[in-house]
Amino acid sequence: GFAKVDHHRKKRQGFPEVIFGEGKTPSQILDISRAILAKNENILVTRVDKEKAEIIKKELPFFTYHEIAQLLFYKTIEETVPMKGYIAIVCAGTSDMRVAEEAALTAEAFGVEVRRFYDVGVAGIHRLLANIEEIQKATVSVVIAGMEGALPSVVGGLVSHPIIAVPTSIGYGANFQGLSALLTMLNSCASGISVVNIDNGFGGAYNAVTIHRIANQQI
Amino acid sequence: GFAKVDHHRKKRQGFPEVIFGEGKTPSQILDISRAILAKNENILVTRVDKEKAEIIKKELPFFTYHEIAQLLFYKTIEETVPMKGYIAIVCAGTSDMRVAEEAALTAEAFGVEVRRFYDVGVAGIHRLLANIEEIQKATVSVVIAGMEGALPSVVGGLVSHPIIAVPTSIGYGANFQGLSALLTMLNSCASGISVVNIDNGFGGAYNAVTIHRIANQQI
Amino acid sequence: GFAKVDHHRKKRQGFPEVIFGEGKTPSQILDISRAILAKNENILVTRVDKEKAEIIKKELPFFTYHEIAQLLFYKTIEETVPMKGYIAIVCAGTSDMRVAEEAALTAEAFGVEVRRFYDVGVAGIHRLLANIEEIQKATVSVVIAGMEGALPSVVGGLVSHPIIAVPTSIGYGANFQGLSALLTMLNSCASGISVVNIDNGFGGAYNAVTIHRIANQQI
Amino acid sequence: GFAKVDHHRKKRQGFPEVIFGEGKTPSQILDISRAILAKNENILVTRVDKEKAEIIKKELPFFTYHEIAQLLFYKTIEETVPMKGYIAIVCAGTSDMRVAEEAALTAEAFGVEVRRFYDVGVAGIHRLLANIEEIQKATVSVVIAGMEGALPSVVGGLVSHPIIAVPTSIGYGANFQGLSALLTMLNSCASGISVVNIDNGFGGAYNAVTIHRIANQQI
Amino acid sequence: GFAKVDHHRKKRQGFPEVIFGEGKTPSQILDISRAILAKNENILVTRVDKEKAEIIKKELPFFTYHEIAQLLFYKTIEETVPMKGYIAIVCAGTSDMRVAEEAALTAEAFGVEVRRFYDVGVAGIHRLLANIEEIQKATVSVVIAGMEGALPSVVGGLVSHPIIAVPTSIGYGANFQGLSALLTMLNSCASGISVVNIDNGFGGAYNAVTIHRIANQQI
Amino acid sequence: GFAKVDHHRKKRQGFPEVIFGEGKTPSQILDISRAILAKNENILVTRVDKEKAEIIKKELPFFTYHEIAQLLFYKTIEETVPMKGYIAIVCAGTSDMRVAEEAALTAEAFGVEVRRFYDVGVAGIHRLLANIEEIQKATVSVVIAGMEGALPSVVGGLVSHPIIAVPTSIGYGANFQGLSALLTMLNSCASGISVVNIDNGFGGAYNAVTIHRIANQQI
Amino acid sequence: GFAKVDHHRKKRQGFPEVIFGEGKTPSQILDISRAILAKNENILVTRVDKEKAEIIKKELPFFTYHEIAQLLFYKTIEETVPMKGYIAIVCAGTSDMRVAEEAALTAEAFGVEVRRFYDVGVAGIHRLLANIEEIQKATVSVVIAGMEGALPSVVGGLVSHPIIAVPTSIGYGANFQGLSALLTMLNSCASGISVVNIDNGFGGAYNAVTIHRIANQQI
Amino acid sequence: GFAKVDHHRKKRQGFPEVIFGEGKTPSQILDISRAILAKNENILVTRVDKEKAEIIKKELPFFTYHEIAQLLFYKTIEETVPMKGYIAIVCAGTSDMRVAEEAALTAEAFGVEVRRFYDVGVAGIHRLLANIEEIQKATVSVVIAGMEGALPSVVGGLVSHPIIAVPTSIGYGANFQGLSALLTMLNSCASGISVVNIDNGFGGAYNAVTIHRIANQQI
Ligand SMILES: Nc1ncnc2c1ncn2[C@@H]1O[C@H](COP(=O)(O)O)[C@@H](O)[C@H]1O
Ligand SMILES: Nc1ncnc2c1ncn2[C@@H]1O[C@H](COP(=O)(O)O)[C@@H](O)[C@H]1O
Ligand SMILES: Nc1ncnc2c1ncn2[C@@H]1O[C@H](COP(=O)(O)O)[C@@H](O)[C@H]1O
Ligand SMILES: Nc1ncnc2c1ncn2[C@@H]1O[C@H](COP(=O)(O)O)[C@@H](O)[C@H]1O
Ligand SMILES: [Mg+2]
Ligand SMILES: [Mg+2]
Ligand SMILES: [Mg+2]
Ligand SMILES: [Mg+2]
Ligand SMILES: [Mg+2]
Ligand SMILES: [Mg+2]
Ligand SMILES: [Mg+2]
Ligand SMILES: [Mg+2]
Repeated sequence: GFAKVDHHRKKRQGFPEVIFGEGKTPSQILDISRAILAKNENILVTRVDKEKAEIIKKELPFFTYHEIAQLLFYKTIEETVPMKGYIAIVCAGTSDMRVAEEAALTAEAFGVEVRRFYDVGVAGIHRLLANIEEIQKATVSVVIAGMEGALPSVVGGLVSHPIIAVPTSIGYGANFQGLSALLTMLNSCASGISVVNIDNGFGGAYNAVTIHRIANQQI
Repeated sequence: GFAKVDHHRKKRQGFPEVIFGEGKTPSQILDISRAILAKNENILVTRVDKEKAEIIKKELPFFTYHEIAQLLFYKTIEETVPMKGYIAIVCAGTSDMRVAEEAALTAEAFGVEVRRFYDVGVAGIHRLLANIEEIQKATVSVVIAGMEGALPSVVGGLVSHPIIAVPTSIGYGANFQGLSALLTMLNSCASGISVVNIDNGFGGAYNAVTIHRIANQQI
Repeated sequence: GFAKVDHHRKKRQGFPEVIFGEGKTPSQILDISRAILAKNENILVTRVDKEKAEIIKKELPFFTYHEIAQLLFYKTIEETVPMKGYIAIVCAGTSDMRVAEEAALTAEAFGVEVRRFYDVGVAGIHRLLANIEEIQKATVSVVIAGMEGALPSVVGGLVSHPIIAVPTSIGYGANFQGLSALLTMLNSCASGISVVNIDNGFGGAYNAVTIHRIANQQI
Repeated sequence: GFAKVDHHRKKRQGFPEVIFGEGKTPSQILDISRAILAKNENILVTRVDKEKAEIIKKELPFFTYHEIAQLLFYKTIEETVPMKGYIAIVCAGTSDMRVAEEAALTAEAFGVEVRRFYDVGVAGIHRLLANIEEIQKATVSVVIAGMEGALPSVVGGLVSHPIIAVPTSIGYGANFQGLSALLTMLNSCASGISVVNIDNGFGGAYNAVTIHRIANQQI
Repeated sequence: GFAKVDHHRKKRQGFPEVIFGEGKTPSQILDISRAILAKNENILVTRVDKEKAEIIKKELPFFTYHEIAQLLFYKTIEETVPMKGYIAIVCAGTSDMRVAEEAALTAEAFGVEVRRFYDVGVAGIHRLLANIEEIQKATVSVVIAGMEGALPSVVGGLVSHPIIAVPTSIGYGANFQGLSALLTMLNSCASGISVVNIDNGFGGAYNAVTIHRIANQQI
Repeated sequence: GFAKVDHHRKKRQGFPEVIFGEGKTPSQILDISRAILAKNENILVTRVDKEKAEIIKKELPFFTYHEIAQLLFYKTIEETVPMKGYIAIVCAGTSDMRVAEEAALTAEAFGVEVRRFYDVGVAGIHRLLANIEEIQKATVSVVIAGMEGALPSVVGGLVSHPIIAVPTSIGYGANFQGLSALLTMLNSCASGISVVNIDNGFGGAYNAVTIHRIANQQI
Repeated sequence: GFAKVDHHRKKRQGFPEVIFGEGKTPSQILDISRAILAKNENILVTRVDKEKAEIIKKELPFFTYHEIAQLLFYKTIEETVPMKGYIAIVCAGTSDMRVAEEAALTAEAFGVEVRRFYDVGVAGIHRLLANIEEIQKATVSVVIAGMEGALPSVVGGLVSHPIIAVPTSIGYGANFQGLSALLTMLNSCASGISVVNIDNGFGGAYNAVTIHRIANQQI
Repeated sequence: GFAKVDHHRKKRQGFPEVIFGEGKTPSQILDISRAILAKNENILVTRVDKEKAEIIKKELPFFTYHEIAQLLFYKTIEETVPMKGYIAIVCAGTSDMRVAEEAALTAEAFGVEVRRFYDVGVAGIHRLLANIEEIQKATVSVVIAGMEGALPSVVGGLVSHPIIAVPTSIGYGANFQGLSALLTMLNSCASGISVVNIDNGFGGAYNAVTIHRIANQQI
């Protein structure tokens, strides 16, 4: 009916359209899912709360729901050639885990290996330093932080691969719902850091996967 | 004296430290340049106006100055193995050229081939469509736009490689010195777009080069 | 009692007063509706949620309620001379539909033919291009978009009639409740675009209808 | 060279491309002007200060420069069929005249008759009321105001044709360079008002001309 | 216990301390009320919702609660010499009534006569003009408006007495919870207007009463 | 020519129109001055820098220029009945003196006696307390402060007459050109304080004079 | 599991890690608490609402919950050498008590004597002056205020020890959730004032305790 | 004349008044200096540019001018008992040196030993780690950073003494003149950090000196 699913996208961009679940009714999500299904493609829905997920799963029970990441996922087809290497998902505090898991599971949904480095914020730098070598060996890092959002700057000074920085809305007062972390990341003194929207774990992963895929291709 | 040049950086990150010229005196820039020179490395100084550049060139005449991009550059060593492929530098209006050239010349300074697609803003979409195939073949695009900054969203829907979006401060009134374009790019509906600071052509290129290098490596 | 309904308005402006339902109690809305009714005029109430609508309909059951658009409407008198031509209501995503329907139904309430072009956002530009000829033949377009709000700029480059741009509050993080889309539209490089308040589908339609009426008059 | 002049625009939009002079060098403006000239079209350049204008006029002396409006204009071809009716340009204070004249001269450049109603701000409402009948007879009004920007709301309540509201940056302190007037106009209680960017007299006129042309056409 | 009621205030300022009810528990309000009562003074509590008011009235049933204005009031002592003249409370829309009534009842609580002029917003200026003579005869006006907040500017041009302008948070989108109306009032071109906080009907009335008292005194 | 001087104002408001000098050319100011002069009224021009003032004085040498306050003034007619009492002009720091003198001289221009209390900011409260009795005897105070703008709150707790608070743009960093002081004054816990625009010494005085006049009238 | 408790911190910083309770589930808080407990250290959890606290206390009943301050606390080990002197906790209004108690109880949890001076805001300066001598004798003051946040400036002018200023989010309208008080404190004319985040009573106390400890040490 | 120098301050606060030079004329600064001199106290003037300093030094040649820090200083009296220990002044980049030197020289003016650790920003963390032990031994650190301002968070995790964080306005684009660094510091995850205004090196030092003095006293 109303929605014009962009089936073309897989051809143009290498990935099928992902559904942004926030602000959509379960029946809208079901409609779009069925349209994608009809093309025999994987389905990923982001920002779906538990209640909504349950209504949807009643109709399409093959979906897996990841509560912490608020994702619905269904995989019909496997990546045929597994990719080499891994993406590092690095996050500052345990409160950033919703966003970190949204990123990690998105990357996995796209068939990429992920390694998680959580709760390694800059206020206790030794925790990051203890893990830095494994992070350095990733093809790309997604670095997630709320509050003052300083983690990407420090990681950026320690690795040579690209960093996708994801500010989160964790904090209060002069944090202004993530504005503080966002500005920090945009102003980073470290080079090789680019930024996506506040709480956009999906976008962070999508960018990382795109780069990871390049690393796996022969130019 | 005062400055602690980060010679380590080349080892850790694959590139030597680049000098941020804004707010530094010519003699501070000369000091840091000489310290880098002593290590036999290439020197890149960004955001240097003409007057400053001339004072510096009197002392270190081997520097090349690019006025439109406001860059000083000196190359001692060549990349030994030339890289394959190219980066697309795409910009919306002719007023965005300072930033676009900062990006293009930075990438070239790092030994990467660049193709320029200028003045292809969304208000006349046919100009972009006429060039899209050559853009699609790049390993990565740096997409630069001021005013409403909509260009990365449109390019993002047409290519499958990563896009580094650079907002510029071109505009007036409710543009708020580039805030408008910055927000547009952070909120893009298209996937595969990450963002750097307003007017940060250098950062856009640096990220693109990092990705381009990955595309040239065997994982 | 308290309210001074502006019955004069129809004379001065060609339309009776429309009731802004938000922040009004059902009994306030009933009072004003009855005052308008007494003058034998059509009644349109915007921003009425379902619960409020039901209370009101118990008293004045002739009202029709449009849930998605949150509008209450009652038509006593028909436009005598039907107008020629149509208004295009163009929207970027399915999440913008509340605002798009507020616009579409308002225009229809004023007796104007409307054509809907939904879910044609810039991230998949081919969806817009597939519909552009029918849009070009409208007298005026109301173009509605959230997130980065880039759609009016692209449409603006492709049509020669006036565009009323309506930013929506759809988005999160650096979207700042629609500020991002609002700034985008105010800074558009394309000419012929003017802007109304965030989520103001009513205002977008009202402006379009005013222009449409001019197109139907002999100067 | 660098610029891709959008010659197509006249076909698509009914007007040739207008040059945004701010941030362009005289030689860039000359290049683009010559490219337009080669197609035998009228040339309009906005936001050109006196010094720049004089350099340009030395090369292309047929240009007329309007200092108060900061416009350069050259007319090769006349509108063949003169349009009926007029546009009202209404402004609040004498300090808003730069923007008002940018609007008025732009409209005249497009071949439309203009009537000026200046210094009729709301703090002395009798000045507006004394002119209201002549304003009411316009096809469309461009209403320009700085400071608190209340004028469009009052005019909007007194006329039935569309109003394009233009906020100016006149004011100080909590005016925030025109933000105050911009917000006022976006939040207007009066219907039939749409808004363009702060100080965008050109855009205000362009929208008005588009509507005026519709009023002169047979649908 | 915890609170240091400022009994001194009546001496220093001519009015006893008024209790700001928001964010206080019923038992805190009761404590402070009893402390004031012990000094035999009138008690006024602002911003008390219905539920809280009922809990308080169970303990201190002599309080009168005004639901629309969200005020609790108890009068022990009467102003001995009644004051001459009246204050005009002027408001733009029916949605501003909570704030308008907070102002009106506060002034009455301080023993001042009030005349109400509601729903006379600038979009239908004739409604204001129809009442202007009675407004002009007031000693001072409290002018209350949300949305674009233009009413004080227009009233300010028509009366010669002082105006206290009160912005309200009525509106949506680019209204930013009353910021729009606040900025409008601070930037008013009309002289003789001063401003209090958004939704501060109490403060508007307090200032007006202070001035009204001066008008009743012999200097 | 262009300007519609509001000669009516004296009748409606009790004062003639005051000229806002900022952004006006000397010849515009001369034109308006002559129009006012022709009506035999006093002329006050605010925000005129020295250079502009000198050009104007060459044509109309009867003007007195107050450099620190940036005011031009010419008095033809004297207030016939001198008013009793005085206005207190209180300011926090010596850097606020431009605004304080704009206020003081404006009030004097309107024939009102002024007492100055300068450099009595809250960081050394004893300086204020040493003067408080003379301040308390004023009919109204204009309290001017930059930086954190806390002075009106403290004065407000110590006097019973109305206070017009004027924030100044003195400060740096998180002062945001006076925003800090403005917000402080709007949020004051003390009652009886109303606020005008940042740096608006003229407006502060105008409001005070209006109140002072009431204090001198028999109701 | 997920969390990397920073046990090192006590060595590096002299205090064990404190748990930020907001946005953590009870089971996450329990996990971290047990990890700290295993090291035999005191446990402090901030920003825990009642419901959460009760779930946690069911598992770990030795915790004490302070409802007004929203703190959970458990003390295993006592400071062996009691410190001399006290910290002053000064707050402006009774609505600031949540933050004030968060500060007071935090300091006490760290073994420091606290003296409370509540409801002494600047609008009634005599209340502060009545307590100033006891405040002056503290080693350091934590000064807490909402609304306009002027209290630290006044206290800062009266004491010679360091002041940690804590803005609160108490207020409405142009308070912008504590922004007003934050800016006031950052712009204070008084010296010796430094600032922590809005509502950060914990941080205010932590800084004070750090200074108090220095006062108790022999350098 | 106009200024009320706060000679009392030395008694109340332990330091004489420091003159804020910005926005004061040379003759105002001379007046205040002479008033302080008459009391036989040290004089410190902040934010004085070179030109102003030279005018002042012509009259009072005993002043020393520090150009990089923009300070004028004159010492009549020496601290009699030298203090033990030192303050660490830590800064991120060489562009922050104006603020760093304002802090360092202020502290030295107050008779405190200072150790400078410049250009140790987080993007090359090894530079900080190489100096950390000497920093840890300070009584207090003043940590100064522009751009993203992350340095205090990292230092805060490595030392146990109090940190005064000073954001600078170094940066561009989304830095918003230091707002980015300011928010970062206010939101720091590390404890023991309090913040002063953007570019307020003087304030940072003043706070540090106050604490350093406590460390030198016997409680
Ligand atoms: N959704 C809406 N958004 C903006 N303005 C509206 C809306 N609905 C009605 N209005 C306008 O608000 C006015 C009524 O305001 P009120 O007197 O508060 O009911 C009408 O005259 C309409 O012009
Ligand atoms: N004063 C102005 N304000 C806003 N847009 C303008 C202005 N003058 C010209 N333009 C638009 O800017 C576009 C040209 O941008 P550019 O390619 O940078 O010259 C033109 O197509 C016009 O539609
Ligand atoms: N310094 C000032 N700040 C604010 N308003 C002013 C100032 N000086 C004059 N005005 C007002 O601005 C109005 C004149 O505006 P204009 O027509 O632009 O000269 C006068 O009626 C004054 O009420
Ligand atoms: N650079 C500075 N930044 C902030 N406050 C300062 C600065 N320099 C001096 N001050 C303070 O400003 C006060 C003096 O202000 P004033 O009376 O305007 O000279 C002094 O007491 C200092 O505490
Ligand atoms: Mg942790
Ligand atoms: Mg162009
Ligand atoms: Mg879609
Ligand atoms: Mg005027
Ligand atoms: Mg109404
Ligand atoms: Mg002073
Ligand atoms: Mg109290
Ligand atoms: Mg460096």
